Amino acid sequence: MKTQLQQVKPGDIERRSFEIIAEELSAMGRVLPPDQAPVIMRAIHASADFDYAENLYFSPGALETGLQALKEGASIVTDTNMAFSGLSKPALAKLGGRALCFMADEDVAEQARRQGTTRAAVCMEKAAAQKEPLIVAIGNAPTALVRLCELIEEGRMAPRLVIGAPVGFVNVAESKEMLMRSNAPCIVARGRKGGSNIAAALCNALLYLAAGRSL
Amino acid sequence: MKTQLQQVKPGDIERRSFEIIAEELSAMGRVLPPDQAPVIMRAIHASADFDYAENLYFSPGALETGLQALKEGASIVTDTNMAFSGLSKPALAKLGGRALCFMADEDVAEQARRQGTTRAAVCMEKAAAQKEPLIVAIGNAPTALVRLCELIEEGRMAPRLVIGAPVGFVNVAESKEMLMRSNAPCIVARGRKGGSNIAAALCNALLYLAAGRSL
Repeated sequence: MKTQLQQVKPGDIERRSFEIIAEELSAMGRVLPPDQAPVIMRAIHASADFDYAENLYFSPGALETGLQALKEGASIVTDTNMAFSGLSKPALAKLGGRALCFMADEDVAEQARRQGTTRAAVCMEKAAAQKEPLIVAIGNAPTALVRLCELIEEGRMAPRLVIGAPVGFVNVAESKEMLMRSNAPCIVARGRKGGSNIAAALCNALLYLAAGRSL
Repeated sequence: MKTQLQQVKPGDIERRSFEIIAEELSAMGRVLPPDQAPVIMRAIHASADFDYAENLYFSPGALETGLQALKEGASIVTDTNMAFSGLSKPALAKLGGRALCFMADEDVAEQARRQGTTRAAVCMEKAAAQKEPLIVAIGNAPTALVRLCELIEEGRMAPRLVIGAPVGFVNVAESKEMLMRSNAPCIVARGRKGGSNIAAALCNALLYLAAGRSL
């Protein structure tokens, strides 16, 4: 038996995928807020997991603030090289921003060893030392998100937007609760789910919106 | 209200995470085949999605074949730079293999334009031209997996193991069915779910097992 593949041109696969996602959300009776829909749908697109239709939280005004920051050339810091890899660097560069990840930096490894903490947490301190406007996207390490919340609370850092999507079982949901109670504009994948792929997908959705693409 | 974080040392987070996953699988009455358990649990760990306890398929002998290949120094080709980023390069290097991804190669982009196909598909042709023993891990593009299955069927390629975990809505489940009907040893995330994070997690689980770690 031969597998029947749908005849869809490479350039049309993404459009067709979003049509399917929209159809299935509609069949589920789930109506997304129109401004958030492209962002939520891109998380579903990246994971084939419709839980993201329920678990994404947008703090009031976060979407507008984040888009404005990108239009003004804000850079994006990620907590993992995987999320960094998944970011659309051309889309970011066109808006004047750059992608940053400090995880592989030798000074970060050294400081983490000295402090007995994770490299991800130290990366957030390095991010706090940057002079440019930043969006911070966390796709893996709750320790990074906890440290980021502390830096925000201490007034040492004021990211224009935080994407909170660490994944896992230990302190992950808790770190997201900390973020949602902070004053930082944030988009959060509540609960245990998330990941570098989700963090990158959420960033890319914002990048495409900021560049004037609808999806 | 302060968030109560669990006091777990950075080095113990992963161990505690796997304990929680094991506890919840047990509470669900789900007993995993002992040899496959570390691989399945690592996919759950990467996504916090227990669907991977149900959707992972191992072709007969695939796990043993894949582990043997890694012990013999096989290299791993990924279809995305995200999956490449997520691979444990130190673990792979220790066993004598290397991580390969051709997605950013200029000749790949040029050939894809000429053929009207995706870069991911062309990457598989480039993989087929490699002389070393290979494990191929697909975390994103069904077009890559379809092309890989064709190359295998045409006898132009014989990967030691295929990790089939593309994600999405168009031809994704179908591409995995093609793989499962091929003669290639394979580990497959059946259905729509998967991703670069899952492909990398499955590879890393095998790398750790091949190196003698239990998890």
